Amino acid sequence: MLQSDLFTKTSKTISEDEKSVNAQLLTRGGFVDKLMAGVYTLLPLGLRVFKKIEKIIREEMDRIGGQEILMPALHPKEPWEKTGRWQDFGGKEMIIIKSQTGKEYALGWTHEEIITPLVQKYVKSYKDLPKYIYQIQDKFRDELRAKSGLLRGREFVMKDLYSFHKDEADLEKYYDKVKIAYHQIFDRCGLGEKTYYTFASGGSFSEFSHEFQTATPAGEDIIHICQKCNVAINNEIKEKVNVCPECGSKDFRQEKAIEVGNIFKLGTKYSKPFDFTYTNEKGEKKPIVMGCYGIGLGRVMGTIAEVYHDSKGLTWPLTVAPFIVHLIKIKSADAKKEAEISRKCSKFYQALQRKKIEVIYDNREDVSAGEKFSDADLIGIPIRMVISEKSGDKVEWKARSGKEVELISAEEALGRLKDLEADIL
Amino acid sequence: MLQSDLFTKTSKTISEDEKSVNAQLLTRGGFVDKLMAGVYTLLPLGLRVFKKIEKIIREEMDRIGGQEILMPALHPKEPWEKTGRWQDFGGKEMIIIKSQTGKEYALGWTHEEIITPLVQKYVKSYKDLPKYIYQIQDKFRDELRAKSGLLRGREFVMKDLYSFHKDEADLEKYYDKVKIAYHQIFDRCGLGEKTYYTFASGGSFSEFSHEFQTATPAGEDIIHICQKCNVAINNEIKEKVNVCPECGSKDFRQEKAIEVGNIFKLGTKYSKPFDFTYTNEKGEKKPIVMGCYGIGLGRVMGTIAEVYHDSKGLTWPLTVAPFIVHLIKIKSADAKKEAEISRKCSKFYQALQRKKIEVIYDNREDVSAGEKFSDADLIGIPIRMVISEKSGDKVEWKARSGKEVELISAEEALGRLKDLEADIL
Repeated sequence: MLQSDLFTKTSKTISEDEKSVNAQLLTRGGFVDKLMAGVYTLLPLGLRVFKKIEKIIREEMDRIGGQEILMPALHPKEPWEKTGRWQDFGGKEMIIIKSQTGKEYALGWTHEEIITPLVQKYVKSYKDLPKYIYQIQDKFRDELRAKSGLLRGREFVMKDLYSFHKDEADLEKYYDKVKIAYHQIFDRCGLGEKTYYTFASGGSFSEFSHEFQTATPAGEDIIHICQKCNVAINNEIKEKVNVCPECGSKDFRQEKAIEVGNIFKLGTKYSKPFDFTYTNEKGEKKPIVMGCYGIGLGRVMGTIAEVYHDSKGLTWPLTVAPFIVHLIKIKSADAKKEAEISRKCSKFYQALQRKKIEVIYDNREDVSAGEKFSDADLIGIPIRMVISEKSGDKVEWKARSGKEVELISAEEALGRLKDLEADIL
Repeated sequence: MLQSDLFTKTSKTISEDEKSVNAQLLTRGGFVDKLMAGVYTLLPLGLRVFKKIEKIIREEMDRIGGQEILMPALHPKEPWEKTGRWQDFGGKEMIIIKSQTGKEYALGWTHEEIITPLVQKYVKSYKDLPKYIYQIQDKFRDELRAKSGLLRGREFVMKDLYSFHKDEADLEKYYDKVKIAYHQIFDRCGLGEKTYYTFASGGSFSEFSHEFQTATPAGEDIIHICQKCNVAINNEIKEKVNVCPECGSKDFRQEKAIEVGNIFKLGTKYSKPFDFTYTNEKGEKKPIVMGCYGIGLGRVMGTIAEVYHDSKGLTWPLTVAPFIVHLIKIKSADAKKEAEISRKCSKFYQALQRKKIEVIYDNREDVSAGEKFSDADLIGIPIRMVISEKSGDKVEWKARSGKEVELISAEEALGRLKDLEADIL
């Protein structure tokens, strides 16, 4: 796209109350706009990043047999009363709405109360099991600590997957598949190396739940990473669990981390209140065993911003960058040369578009070279390509995260970009 | 996909309180599930239809220069007070939330109050204009008349586009472009022939607003269609406007219709309360002139169901069908023949997948031929292909909306399907 068409602009400063690095950089770069604490608009650049994260998650969910649906945010009271969570959370973290008719409703912050009776309508027999159902959907939470930019929202998009099984053994098998899919998701988002499979407190059904924690100083959690096998323990259970549950080692290092995903064995916690059973091979009624698996998309985006930035701005990984190439035209004072540069830029821009390489072209006329460079650094698109008087019949190639500036031919640049794109898929 | 994997099932009957044809058929076919009046879950088949409608709308919005963003549903009170709509609608159609902190918020049913101050942050000069910004987003409305299935929701996904202009002439120009894009959208969704550009009551700024009304007996609106030029007048203004505003004819026919989209010249109605001005070429401050343009995606889906069905079920247009092909295996009692049929089906299913033709394969073992056919008719996928003892080395081809059953070779079937797919794009 043409940068001159983009309705947002970068800004040098933002309001003082925005303390978190992710919100500062994403706001200054024109990725998000804060409507109020914990509530953000995704602007065109931000929505592009968001959709790439969404696509990665969707592909990995589909790969493990997930069927996508879309449940409402507006919920009736009854199923929430049935599980007792209306009483526990209503009017606290859970937002309650009173209609003009006087009736009360909840705004969903999770969907066990909705999906359990939904799946119950269709699943009757062992032949109908197992089933894996997910959605990517907007959630609400009356969050008092919404001070971390995109990391902790009062409104936030989640991928929530729910699995339904005939027994615990079948749940265990799928749980391991989800674990692998989650590692795959965080790998593809560029967070793989810093994201640890973390043991956290469980529920009535299982000793542990598991989190995926990305180590960064911006984290609100503390994890203890096993030096031997790289799994981690959430600080909340460190007193009880002081040897690594995976390898038995006692050698840990402590880090701050952001919980980017979690997986949880629910067992029969939600099937019981709805009396959700199935008929097994012998004709007996058995309770359904469930698992649930969440990832917050905005939180992943905020975490990537926390991990991928330097003093000049963001440094997006290729897989989630809003564009692959930032093409920059540097004006010449000489009218003839200027016409030549413009022609070259347009030609190269069109060549990129024809090859379906995602490009934003900084064609702005009234902006200085210095400003264009600092904008490009702030926005953080992986490859910067400059065409100027100096570049002659070549183009200037620079990786956002590198230092080297190379002069290469347009053909070579296109070849390199095609190679990069192949890496993404 | 394999029909045996689908977690939903069709049903012969549904609850009596569901009166509308769209909700009855979409529920029975396993496209949607009613959580409560006006609030539906999109099930796997329904979400596939929904995403096709979404893609069509997005493509047409992008084509007319729209930049996509995603605004929150949770809104602060202040901008709504500024325009007076908090006072007019809060606690009535507009849902108000009280946080545990005591603060009040609104749930968005439209976004003028959010987008106007947002765009104001970036647009300062005539050089920044015009701008066209849209989102596809979940909205809430405390609707007392939510009795028409997907046609009138309390929670519903809208595409809302807002345009920002330097003057009325520029707004007019874009308004006409949106009109063409809207016709294109409804054409592509299969509603083109029955959808009329309709004059409706305007606001303080313009004499008329315009609706896109799809003629169907399920409609809650009444329109008067000009027999000469095919534009329509909404009944609400028929008394004031009794000649066709387009051609002057007085010859109308009356039909019931569903409002599937609307476009509206806002003028300075929302820029004024926010004091949103720009500096023109002469250095003068001028108010921004706005337009807004909505389409409800669920309503479009419901309208398609109202228009495309027969006594047996849904008859989706190719462009929005959940799949293109419904491949059905009919069992043989003869074990050897049965093995042969299964092999042929699998081979053909794989061939379709390789060619990226969207197919659902009814591989269910414990379901009779009659049940499979009536399920296929209910779900309404455009092409039904049957492999059975009778089909020999051919496959049986039948269009859902036609009567003819043909026996053709697998190669010919693949060729025909590729031609159909080409028609969609």
